[in-house]
Amino acid sequence: MFSAVADVCEWLTERHKANEYLVKKVPLDQLDGWRIGENGDIAHHTGRFYTITGLSITGANRPIRDWEQPIIDQPEQGILGILVKRFDGVPHYLLQAKMEPGNVNMLQLSPTVQATKSNYTRAHGGKSVPYLEYFRSPRRGRVLFDALQSEQGAWFLAKRNRNMVVEVVEEVPVLPDFCWLSYDQISELLHIDNMVNMDTRTVLSGAIVPRRMDKDDPGADPFRAALASDTPERPRYTETELLIWFTEAKARSTMERQRIPLAKVSGWVHENGMIGHEDDRHFTVVGLSVEASNREVSEWSQPMIAPRGLGVVAFLAKRIQGTLHLLVQARTEAGAFDSVEMAPTVQCIPDSYRELPEESLPPFLNEVLSAPASQVRFDCVHSEEGGRFYHAQNRYLLVELPEDSDVDVPENFVWMTLRQLLGFVRYSNHLNVEARNLLACLGFLR
Amino acid sequence: MFSAVADVCEWLTERHKANEYLVKKVPLDQLDGWRIGENGDIAHHTGRFYTITGLSITGANRPIRDWEQPIIDQPEQGILGILVKRFDGVPHYLLQAKMEPGNVNMLQLSPTVQATKSNYTRAHGGKSVPYLEYFRSPRRGRVLFDALQSEQGAWFLAKRNRNMVVEVVEEVPVLPDFCWLSYDQISELLHIDNMVNMDTRTVLSGAIVPRRMDKDDPGADPFRAALASDTPERPRYTETELLIWFTEAKARSTMERQRIPLAKVSGWVHENGMIGHEDDRHFTVVGLSVEASNREVSEWSQPMIAPRGLGVVAFLAKRIQGTLHLLVQARTEAGAFDSVEMAPTVQCIPDSYRELPEESLPPFLNEVLSAPASQVRFDCVHSEEGGRFYHAQNRYLLVELPEDSDVDVPENFVWMTLRQLLGFVRYSNHLNVEARNLLACLGFLR
Repeated sequence: MFSAVADVCEWLTERHKANEYLVKKVPLDQLDGWRIGENGDIAHHTGRFYTITGLSITGANRPIRDWEQPIIDQPEQGILGILVKRFDGVPHYLLQAKMEPGNVNMLQLSPTVQATKSNYTRAHGGKSVPYLEYFRSPRRGRVLFDALQSEQGAWFLAKRNRNMVVEVVEEVPVLPDFCWLSYDQISELLHIDNMVNMDTRTVLSGAIVPRRMDKDDPGADPFRAALASDTPERPRYTETELLIWFTEAKARSTMERQRIPLAKVSGWVHENGMIGHEDDRHFTVVGLSVEASNREVSEWSQPMIAPRGLGVVAFLAKRIQGTLHLLVQARTEAGAFDSVEMAPTVQCIPDSYRELPEESLPPFLNEVLSAPASQVRFDCVHSEEGGRFYHAQNRYLLVELPEDSDVDVPENFVWMTLRQLLGFVRYSNHLNVEARNLLACLGFLR
Repeated sequence: MFSAVADVCEWLTERHKANEYLVKKVPLDQLDGWRIGENGDIAHHTGRFYTITGLSITGANRPIRDWEQPIIDQPEQGILGILVKRFDGVPHYLLQAKMEPGNVNMLQLSPTVQATKSNYTRAHGGKSVPYLEYFRSPRRGRVLFDALQSEQGAWFLAKRNRNMVVEVVEEVPVLPDFCWLSYDQISELLHIDNMVNMDTRTVLSGAIVPRRMDKDDPGADPFRAALASDTPERPRYTETELLIWFTEAKARSTMERQRIPLAKVSGWVHENGMIGHEDDRHFTVVGLSVEASNREVSEWSQPMIAPRGLGVVAFLAKRIQGTLHLLVQARTEAGAFDSVEMAPTVQCIPDSYRELPEESLPPFLNEVLSAPASQVRFDCVHSEEGGRFYHAQNRYLLVELPEDSDVDVPENFVWMTLRQLLGFVRYSNHLNVEARNLLACLGFLR
């Protein structure tokens, strides 16, 4: 157990030193265990894990309507699970210092269990996944949260993982790379760049529980106050109205998508052992070779998606009738399980829009990037999943507009309260991973 | 406006006489406008409307795990919409006496709008769909309900329709085949066999609003009382616990499905112009030729699914802690959008199980069919969609077990209250069409 967050950082450094990691870029056609098919698709020789294939999009309700792109097809569902246990009445979460080859800093805090089905059925023939038994039925412990949640719709084709939180009362042995962290410690860690990995953040979005405000804490953050169970809430729209808005957005979606051979994806070029966009936008598909001393297998290779530039994931917030609301977007995404999900106000890689006309820019991007410091309530860089994405980082932002500011809300945007969003998190496939990740940061805001 | 339900029945008879309908069976290979491809699939020559194709299922969590079958592939979403307007403060619903070739009695009460995208974009080159403008954006009127709901997972591949209820205050012209009916009149009509069609019932499941009990009505039905907003409810499980149960059921699903050529579907035989199951179970694919004087087009042909035998759709109910609960099944279905949906306790065609061993029978089927009359709270035969299914009828039942009866609940079943089910109806893709249809009957129970 750590008494201070500085000790957690020190422990992470120590874990980093205790293990050896070596990650090198290699050409896609020289990836050990992977084959490039006649159609250009990059697949594992066993047919398992995932495949890099092509997707053709037409008629999306977005500034750019038609495009083709490489995409990760990983049909199997994995488990992302966090174990919770109370120590002296205070809930603690069992996190793991886990190396992922795509992480800028190698080690980040990941969930107790973060395993694809290939992992936990040991397709790679490696070690078993520790703590898995708490997340598979029949199990000990009480399930507090369990939902099938989507992952990056821009890079994954209909990918979903099971997000679980399980509470136990029994003794749990703590393995070398694991540690128990309290809600408050996680809250602090979420304010440090690239410490809490994507999988932990998405699971935590299901672990945010409105609790009574501490009476000794009158100066608490307004977002913490907005989540407190004893703060009365006056939502601008009812839950039923929000669901109607969401169905309307899905019905408005005219996007059609078709899987195509990776070799046929137009606008993308396979050269120098990588697949990149001809205008150097969006992302690159790269190959990595990895050696690690503390993973299920000690050496492997894999293709990854490397975004070109730092992304922005931001909610605009505003008090309406005295209650804090976030501006939520019904966002059409290439790979989304059901085409449209609830997303942050802004979610993009600004560099992908350079030299494009003003009207192609995502709405509200300028408002977020030019917000005065006094309106920025949260601003931290976090990584996306380092097991599939190479050096993928997003700046997570929360910008609170003045109560009297006038926002022109397009039809695919709506104001929701924090508690309404938390309600939708319990339902699978409502909030996209970027919205859940940002919500976790806000829910754990100090 | 009708003062009595008898007048509605008389009006339907009159509408039937005012129009001419002729439906004949024709061999599948002689359907005008339809082609049987080399792979055996039956498709419209335009490529629109729908296709009868094949589906191969393996590893379903059901008594029979693997099978192949013909299935309807209709990827486009239609609109099922009911217009509501208050007359003297009482909400009335605009229904339509609509002919469908598969209806046993030809005319049934259908929603204000019941149109596939092919219909309302006029792929058939016929008349426009009346009242459609109320259900497409931008619209007049207030949307009370709007969800993307699934249809028969046993016969449709991932089919969904938008279910909408829209309230207007303005004058609405009433066309010859349309009429305004009150909540109480619909309630009475739902007690008559084959009067209120499937599309109306599924939309009505989203129109059930818990209301205050009439104080003059102490002898009201316990189900009506259970729905009343002023009856305190003590659910056995919280909504969060039910969602956890639902995710667990989806995660347990090991079903894999693959579209296959209709000609390759094993166990089914194409002979005498029809496609039937070799053991005469389940259903038959038949061809129909239709003439009608009051539809968008006056003559057409189409293939249809004709089930073999009367189905049973039933909820077992029981009072727990004084609150009425229904036994809900997490049901894996071949064509379900997300593999598993919340279903009635029993949903099957009993004839399909004849001569099969006892352990193949669906759970609780015997309990429902052998329930004493004193426990049967609702028992009525209703039709499934007569535009795709030929003479498809289900006996809809509600059986209330004594409070002290001991029910052994398998892991894919759970007790829910009526109001919890109504909550899930607002979310797309939670309750299957059979559950929604039965719920509509219960919600409108007198």
